[in-house]
This record gives sequence, structure tokens and C-alpha cells, in this order.
Amino acid sequence: MIATLELPRPYLLFVGGAAESAYAKTACGLRDWAPEHCIGEFGLADGPAVTGLPRMQPAEAHRRGARSLVIGVAIPGGVLAEEWVACLLEALHAGLDIVSGMHSRLASTPLLKRTAEQLGRRLIDVRTPPARIPVGNGRKRSGMRLLTVGTDCAIGKKYTALALTRALRARAIDADFRATGQTGIMIAGSGIPIDAVVADFVAGAAEALTPDAPSGHWDLVEGQGSLFHPSYAGVSLGLLHGAQPDVIVLCHEVGRLHVIDHPEYPLPTLEEAIALHLALARRTNPAVRCAGVSLNTSKLSTTDADALLAAQSDRLGLPCADPIRAGAVFERLVSACLQA
Amino acid sequence: MIATLELPRPYLLFVGGAAESAYAKTACGLRDWAPEHCIGEFGLADGPAVTGLPRMQPAEAHRRGARSLVIGVAIPGGVLAEEWVACLLEALHAGLDIVSGMHSRLASTPLLKRTAEQLGRRLIDVRTPPARIPVGNGRKRSGMRLLTVGTDCAIGKKYTALALTRALRARAIDADFRATGQTGIMIAGSGIPIDAVVADFVAGAAEALTPDAPSGHWDLVEGQGSLFHPSYAGVSLGLLHGAQPDVIVLCHEVGRLHVIDHPEYPLPTLEEAIALHLALARRTNPAVRCAGVSLNTSKLSTTDADALLAAQSDRLGLPCADPIRAGAVFERLVSACLQA
Repeated sequence: MIATLELPRPYLLFVGGAAESAYAKTACGLRDWAPEHCIGEFGLADGPAVTGLPRMQPAEAHRRGARSLVIGVAIPGGVLAEEWVACLLEALHAGLDIVSGMHSRLASTPLLKRTAEQLGRRLIDVRTPPARIPVGNGRKRSGMRLLTVGTDCAIGKKYTALALTRALRARAIDADFRATGQTGIMIAGSGIPIDAVVADFVAGAAEALTPDAPSGHWDLVEGQGSLFHPSYAGVSLGLLHGAQPDVIVLCHEVGRLHVIDHPEYPLPTLEEAIALHLALARRTNPAVRCAGVSLNTSKLSTTDADALLAAQSDRLGLPCADPIRAGAVFERLVSACLQA
Repeated sequence: MIATLELPRPYLLFVGGAAESAYAKTACGLRDWAPEHCIGEFGLADGPAVTGLPRMQPAEAHRRGARSLVIGVAIPGGVLAEEWVACLLEALHAGLDIVSGMHSRLASTPLLKRTAEQLGRRLIDVRTPPARIPVGNGRKRSGMRLLTVGTDCAIGKKYTALALTRALRARAIDADFRATGQTGIMIAGSGIPIDAVVADFVAGAAEALTPDAPSGHWDLVEGQGSLFHPSYAGVSLGLLHGAQPDVIVLCHEVGRLHVIDHPEYPLPTLEEAIALHLALARRTNPAVRCAGVSLNTSKLSTTDADALLAAQSDRLGLPCADPIRAGAVFERLVSACLQA
């Protein structure tokens, strides 16, 4: 039984036209984190180059091996403009499937739906969970698992999991990034959009996403939501229980004092956040430990960031690093994750 | 915006035939907890009387005011037998909508779907959440809220919330039972099947279920799952955060030592369960308190049950009662819920 989405790769990245090129965050994320799976970029004739990858038409991309066109740019208003539909149709005719992370489904555009059916192509919405996700069973699985958790949403959980995956692989460790959100799924080429799963099946989805593996293997699971978020804590707990992490890494942003858009919800201290996550994670993996903290210091100068990371590491007795500022500090966090 | 299911009442209760009458748990629950909304029962000609309510055909029930036929009996194999379909068609023709808590949707039986459409009747599956459930906003709402929580699933959370609602009303307190599961929704006539909601919207569903209310009003919210269940804890946490209870009552069954069907997951002590629920509930309602424990003592003699309840009350310093054994002990728990 396959309970995860599997995306056809390599990709051709769709970056829209001149008006949208500043919103090509997904395309740039794919270029940065999955360059070996990106053949090139494709956009409206009036649009500028965006990702630095070679620009090409869908037919050429298909000849070079591309299997799907990924919509790598946010759509103003969420509705497909007519010129966009023409581009997507061109991709379908060239032999590519289409992958989208938009809120509205690709198939809700009748012309796309009809053409895809006629040509036998797939329209894949990565916000739509796969069918037949099982209920969680709580059984301990083989292999090692790390989950990034956060004091809030949108605080670096995906980035941290990706950076740790890359760092483990650089040490010749067998490691997989396990994606739980739309951009992560496109980067990984597979995954489950965990917050779109029916509530009863969230832990089961996390179990399906990180199956039994060889004992030296690491799954690095992208966290979602936060136990401290008044809207999404249930998603985070289901993922925490189902992922059964051996290691958690707490993600936080310097200077963020309250939940985004919720000034009445102050964020916890790092100590409180670590303690609560460990207390709850022990239910499905009594051996869980916190390896350290991933701190987003992008608002600080290098000097200030280095000083802060050193001070926090001392205070917590745990490595505290900013994965964007690679180097010895981050490598200490990586080593702490691997410690038996 | 209405984000809860609303069922047409009063009901006619469908109890099936001779083979199924032992499985009429839902029909008996409706008779016990919503007698004022039950006109009578209806079953196959060969079947025995089940609920003690007057037996009648759909046409007569409709004349007496019934607005829907509720499937009040479990279906062997979950598939509608042909004789059953004939009964449901008769109800549709008599002017009744149909309400079902089955896993398979009513509309998946083509003849039912077609007939309901032709006659303008509704086929209502209470396992299907209503559309347009909002994301939680974490805003504090007016009025009082009580949530029943449990050390495990299927341990008395619905029964306890219903018994407390009845007890509060007996004290002339304005109180509503708020249903989160299929049987509860049929009893209340409205509600949201919280475990069938998409994970991101669970807290929002709980907020929609228990809206602002006058300051003397109590919502008694049916708990779902358990924070200690490896499959369903996320549902329970989303409900806990969204319901923002002022009071929790912990439900447990004497002698249950581990999660049902999960012998490797021991249940927590009552103290541990209370402490974890309060710690997490404080995130959206810092004033939350535990009023006491609802203990299912059905496997004990009256003498043993009374002794155990007294001992547990002393030990915890909280009223500990079995709502099935009404009386002074249970009334102490009710009073503790109301204490300012």
C-alpha cells in the first residue's frame, strides 16, 4: 500500500510572467534543494529569467527528460489567468504531468481537466492527501527518526530538516528528508500534506511517511504547526506521536515574541518548549531526546548572531545553531543529532 | 455561517429486523437521552419491539410530526440489505429525511440517492462534517464550557457529558450538550463529527461548536479520543484547545490498564492524566481547572464501587463519581463543576 504522494521527476519549473516573478519562492526552493531534479524553467514570453536554470519550452524539457511541470510561483488571487492556462496546456501536450500547490485544484479548470484526461496526463495537487491513509498503530519502527518542531508556525522547521538531511548525507549517512507540506513534498518528490489529512489519520499518516528502515538510516521529518499554536497544535501532536522521533530539534526565530497574528499568545521559553515536546513525544518513543535548537538569526549581524548562539548554547547546555550560517556551530548540532 | 450539522427532528427510529435488534445501541441511546425527540420505532415486519417506543410505519410517524428516520441499528457488514433499502424508500416517500451514522454514505446506494433527489429529501450522514469549518482563532468566548476528557477512547466521555447536562438542567441551569461524535450528534440534533474534520480545522470546529453564550450558560462538550492514545491524541488536543474549557472532568474505567487493543501502551495514573490535560488546556484558557473524575465502575458491586469512589475522592482531593450510579456522590461532582 502506498500512502504517500509520488511526484513524476525531473521537473520543469513554471515561473509565470513579469508580474509574478517576485513570488517564485517555490521555484527557487526547488532550485536550491532539489537541483538534480530540475531540468529548467519555463515562463510567459514577457517574463524575466528567475531561477538561473536554462529557460526552455515544455517540448524541449520533455526531450531532456522532464516528466512534470511544477507551478513554482504564487498565483495572484489564486485563480489561473488565461495565459497561464495556455502554458499548462502546452506542457500537457508536450507530455508533462502538472504539479501544483495551489489552494484551488487544477481539475477545477475544465479545459485543463478535459485535456489531461484526453492525453492521459496527471494533474497532481500536492495539497490533496493520498487515499487510503491508515489509522496509526503506535508500533515502534526500525531505523532512526528526527523531527523538527517549533515554538510557532513558519519558523524554520522545513529549512532545518532540509539542512540536516544535507549535512547527514555529507557525512555519508543514509538519510531521507520526509516532507509534510506542499513545498517540502515538491522538493522531496514525495510526502503527505499532513495538515490536510482527516484528523483521525494524522498519526497514521506520519507512520506511513516514515516506515521501517535499516538501523543506520535516518528519516528527517519536516515538522508542521506548533504545540503552542491555538489553531494547529493537534496537527503537531499527531505528527509528533506518529513520527516517533528519536531526536527532536527545536526551531525558533530570534525576536519572535508571540504566535504570528496572535499577539495574545506569547511564545514559550525554549526550555518550556523542549520540556513539553519531550513529555508528549515519550508516549510513543520513551527514548526521545532533544539534540539542540535551530535558531533563525537572519535579523542579526554575524557578530551579534554568533554571540547569541554561543550564549544560548551555554545557557541550555545544548548546541544552538542557525542552519543558514553553516560552519562549526551548525556541525556541532549535526553531531549532537547523531550522538547515541 | 453555520458550521455544525443540524438534524431534522423529531425522529422515527429504524431498528432493522430480528437479526439486528441486539445491535440497536443508537436507537436505545436516543430513547434514553432524547426521548422528547423520538416519535416511535420502525422495523422489518419480522423484527421484535426494541426500544419500547410505539411501533409505527413512516407515514403515521410523519403525521405525528416526525421529520427524519434515524438508522438506529448497526448494519452487519456495513452494507444495506435489500429489505432495509425498501424501508428507507418507504420513509422517503412518507416525507421523512434519513439520518445515518454508517461508514458508507447513504447516497452510495443509487436507488436511495435518486429517490431522495426526486422527492426533495435529504440523506444526512453524520460522519460527514459540515462544509466551511473555519480555522481556529484562539479568541476567548463568553459563557462557561466543560469538556469531558479520558485516559483512553470509549471510556465514558459522551455518557458523562450527557449526565452532567441533565444534572445541570435539573438545577435550572441553562446548559447544552455539544456533540462531537455520531451518536452524540443524533442525541443533540446537531454537532460536528470532530475526528472526521481535516486536521487543520479541528480547533476551529470546536470553536464553532461552542460559540459565545450568555455568562450563566454552560456548554458540556463531548470529548473524543485521548491525549494518551497513540493514534488519536491530535484530535483530543485540537478539541481541548478549541473548546477552551473552564472545567474538565476526567473519565476513566476501573481496571482498564492499557489503551484498548494496545497492550504496549499503559494508561497513565489519574494524577498524570489530570496534570497533562491542565497543562495543555491552559494554553487557550489559563483559568481551566479539573472538577473531578468520572469513573466507570460497572464491573464492581455497589459496595465495592462506593468504597472505591470514596477512596479515590480522598486520595485525589476531588469528587470522584460514577454517573451511572446517580446520587449524592455524583451530585458532589456536579457541584464541583459549578464552583466558581
